[in-house]
Amino acid sequence: MNKSAILHIPLSQYAFASGEFELTIRIRTGKQDLTKCTLYYADRACGSVPIEFQSVLMETVYSDELFDYYECVVKSPYSRVCYFFKLEKDEEWIYYYGDEFREEMADIKLDGFMIDGRSEYYQYPFLLKSEIYKEPEWFKNALVYNIFPDSFATGKGYIEKMPKEIEASDKKKCKSRLGGTLRGIMENLDYIKELGFDCLYLNPIFVAGECHKYDIRDYCQIDPCFGTNEEFRELVEKIHERNMYIVIDGVFNHCSWDFFAFEDVVEKGKKSRYWDWFYRLEEPVVRPKDETTIPGYASFTYERKMPKLNTANTEVQEYFCNVCSYWLKEYRVDGWRLDVANEVDKNFWRRFRKTAKEINKDAVFIGEVWENSEVWLRGDMFDSTMNYDFRRHCRDFFALGNIDKDTFAGQITSMYLRYSKEVAEGQLNILDSHDVPRFLSLCGGNMKRWKMAVCFLMMMPGVPCIFYGDERGIEGVAENEYRKAMPWEYEEDRTGEDSPENIIKELADFRKKYIKPGDGFQIHTTGEKLILNRGEKIEAIFDMEKETCEWSYK
Amino acid sequence: MNKSAILHIPLSQYAFASGEFELTIRIRTGKQDLTKCTLYYADRACGSVPIEFQSVLMETVYSDELFDYYECVVKSPYSRVCYFFKLEKDEEWIYYYGDEFREEMADIKLDGFMIDGRSEYYQYPFLLKSEIYKEPEWFKNALVYNIFPDSFATGKGYIEKMPKEIEASDKKKCKSRLGGTLRGIMENLDYIKELGFDCLYLNPIFVAGECHKYDIRDYCQIDPCFGTNEEFRELVEKIHERNMYIVIDGVFNHCSWDFFAFEDVVEKGKKSRYWDWFYRLEEPVVRPKDETTIPGYASFTYERKMPKLNTANTEVQEYFCNVCSYWLKEYRVDGWRLDVANEVDKNFWRRFRKTAKEINKDAVFIGEVWENSEVWLRGDMFDSTMNYDFRRHCRDFFALGNIDKDTFAGQITSMYLRYSKEVAEGQLNILDSHDVPRFLSLCGGNMKRWKMAVCFLMMMPGVPCIFYGDERGIEGVAENEYRKAMPWEYEEDRTGEDSPENIIKELADFRKKYIKPGDGFQIHTTGEKLILNRGEKIEAIFDMEKETCEWSYK
Repeated sequence: MNKSAILHIPLSQYAFASGEFELTIRIRTGKQDLTKCTLYYADRACGSVPIEFQSVLMETVYSDELFDYYECVVKSPYSRVCYFFKLEKDEEWIYYYGDEFREEMADIKLDGFMIDGRSEYYQYPFLLKSEIYKEPEWFKNALVYNIFPDSFATGKGYIEKMPKEIEASDKKKCKSRLGGTLRGIMENLDYIKELGFDCLYLNPIFVAGECHKYDIRDYCQIDPCFGTNEEFRELVEKIHERNMYIVIDGVFNHCSWDFFAFEDVVEKGKKSRYWDWFYRLEEPVVRPKDETTIPGYASFTYERKMPKLNTANTEVQEYFCNVCSYWLKEYRVDGWRLDVANEVDKNFWRRFRKTAKEINKDAVFIGEVWENSEVWLRGDMFDSTMNYDFRRHCRDFFALGNIDKDTFAGQITSMYLRYSKEVAEGQLNILDSHDVPRFLSLCGGNMKRWKMAVCFLMMMPGVPCIFYGDERGIEGVAENEYRKAMPWEYEEDRTGEDSPENIIKELADFRKKYIKPGDGFQIHTTGEKLILNRGEKIEAIFDMEKETCEWSYK
Repeated sequence: MNKSAILHIPLSQYAFASGEFELTIRIRTGKQDLTKCTLYYADRACGSVPIEFQSVLMETVYSDELFDYYECVVKSPYSRVCYFFKLEKDEEWIYYYGDEFREEMADIKLDGFMIDGRSEYYQYPFLLKSEIYKEPEWFKNALVYNIFPDSFATGKGYIEKMPKEIEASDKKKCKSRLGGTLRGIMENLDYIKELGFDCLYLNPIFVAGECHKYDIRDYCQIDPCFGTNEEFRELVEKIHERNMYIVIDGVFNHCSWDFFAFEDVVEKGKKSRYWDWFYRLEEPVVRPKDETTIPGYASFTYERKMPKLNTANTEVQEYFCNVCSYWLKEYRVDGWRLDVANEVDKNFWRRFRKTAKEINKDAVFIGEVWENSEVWLRGDMFDSTMNYDFRRHCRDFFALGNIDKDTFAGQITSMYLRYSKEVAEGQLNILDSHDVPRFLSLCGGNMKRWKMAVCFLMMMPGVPCIFYGDERGIEGVAENEYRKAMPWEYEEDRTGEDSPENIIKELADFRKKYIKPGDGFQIHTTGEKLILNRGEKIEAIFDMEKETCEWSYK
């Protein structure tokens, strides 16, 4: 038996409650190593000594390159569970509990006394109602359309493509490169809805200097290049009228160096009451003239114009929780995508979530965390993270062809298994975003490969998210290219059967009609093909040789 | 290479910051599998593409039965770190990052563009000041004496041993079995201090029915069997005068069925404003007459007299956070041991910690979690947990002789490595408590084996905790036995060189004089011996054949 491959972590993606009396238990073993794996579980609070276990045979539900994953769902009649595994390989067998291999159960006899060993097994201490994690239902069912506001639209089917500078109420300039506006988004909502999307995720829209708006000066005002607060209210109303949702971008790791509190520390130094609002300030606080100078304060990357906020400071927490409340309460947004989420104090996120959930228990929080984000997805911070690993695996397999189908299937499986089922269903799966080259460019413009990746995206557990203009075949490897203006003028040429627009429409349609969150998920390979199943009826087949994909509901 | 044995988990005991510019990185590998392991790390925010890595050779600092553990401490000049491993076995080598084995670095060239892959390496997103976890300094250096108040003392060197019942201000009875009091503790403080202890941990002392006082009726009053609030104030003062500390027991998972809020739900049913203060109530709320009846409400185990509190309810949270404040502010206790901590809502613990730390940033929180408690020890809930696994390993090795010295050394090593260094230094290591048989009984009364275990306890990283009367050789396998009255009368007979009292004194002395938290920790075996080292100078040698132990400072 390959003991060094065995892994089980209590209270993790290996042991999670999906209901007050439903527990999923997983264990990782060496690939094709065991011949049998049994879970024994008991009521850890029961009165009898020795404790009475029930057993259930576990099934190998997943495999990747190195491991098999056994799983079972226990409908437990009790809230407090202890459990252990019996691992078998032909004639060889061993118990596994408390991270140890043992030949015996945990009770010990001493002087005629039975010394109860129940605390030595794995424990699920209590399936607490308050800790059974559920994604907001609407979000699990959503199809998300991500808009970079400057690049999308100025009006119906139209974008200006003229740079401009507008003065905000603080008398400072706000820049726009291409002229997209909230009005433009509003006038194209039916277009987005007809494509099949029911949730908009907008990159930042508050008053900021650069056209990307990640350098925010005023967190409670819409950037004048994009419109007004009243127009935003109208936009949200129009979105909700169409039974659609809106998620906005929250940038709380850093602000603009023109943010009022930073102005104050520049002016007053240590005497400023905002001194502790920033991170690692040095006196005097000077805004470097040269953009290559590393500033004397912490900032986003080393960008002088974006000083890092001290999100551990309770005043800072309160200020930005008020920002959160403002947009949720006054404008009824449905959630936040949270920028540079992994560099922010975790207690800030906990407070942020609590604040928001008291206003709207269905609000969703999507952290920008590119790596495995299990740390942020334990129910106390985010519901979702931007799944850049999904993109990476698809890039390597569908676009670059760097890896074979078995490696890809294994990577997707391990990726899926790094979270509980519920959390995996809420991952924001992406092929591209405002921060990476367009997927079609990674495919070298090969639409067949792009189509396979989009099909894979739409079939997978998780919430599919498409970056604006993918449906118009936008390409781009450099930033200004992949953030280019929406090519509205190509509308007529791009609606044929094999157009990206049609591919997205068809797949979105299929997904909404047939795939429900919670449907089973399996991926395997056979011959030249990679096959993805959702439950018993849904199948997608990918043939890398022929560069084709087919999807069906039986 | 045994790839299936490789384990690294970012932001865990495998990657933790011990300072704003100091990062410890660990990786687990198959035992004696690799010939070389190198860490590559870089500034993940740096401007250059490709990113420039520095490398450092990792050392095998620990081994257990199946694995080697490589570790290195990086003095990083930057706050945002990405890293990967190069694993080598003779001529074979592979990179390891993002939980994948790769032959190449993560950057990709596309159409002449370098597509930056830095986000694909392991990430330590930001070594945030607010998230660098430190145990309270006093606690890391403490030696703890655990008193079960009913059993300890009524006066100086004396305990009454007479059961009594006293009416509390609520006109209900409070029971005592042996007559211990706060006055008794007060009058024996010098005795405790001379033994070498500087921290008292008291089992519950608030108004409750049973003599164990885990069924609390009034969280703001000292139980009348033990004394008065004023006597408690005096006790705390006397403790602090002696430069000692006091930790009290907080029971917030459940209360007594005579607690005012439960009285109210029994009386008013669903109309009670306290209905949601309890867990899974059924109407009508009836107190079962028969002690074997499982009540119609959740309770501690299935004990009818201890209804489970709904600690997710914010009013409940506020009520018990006020209790926490009261004892910290008004009586200046130094910390809480938290009963049945693993069955309580985690947001309650977060709020509890925050409340307490605002009053006393050095307050300590010790959760009662018998199993691996990593989930509770991430800096947002507890500083420490009661280390029952320490006891279990010592039981199997020193007392029962069930396992050999190599197995034991391996178990202790894995136990130590399941937390960061700082957290491991704060574990409350125990050989016994009010909930388990006396360790001496597990040794079958063999004082030599008991001495070896106590020596091991005093040498280990973590905070040693001795249960009252161990120094008098108390034995007991059944509850009333191991909680028996302190045998003050044996004082004269038990002070000789080989007396348990003297053994504890000598070892406590040695520990305080020579061992500092943060001292290195190594354990290995050779011939018949098990050897434990702390840094270069401290060594303890255990010989299981001869049943001897020696400790020395070179």
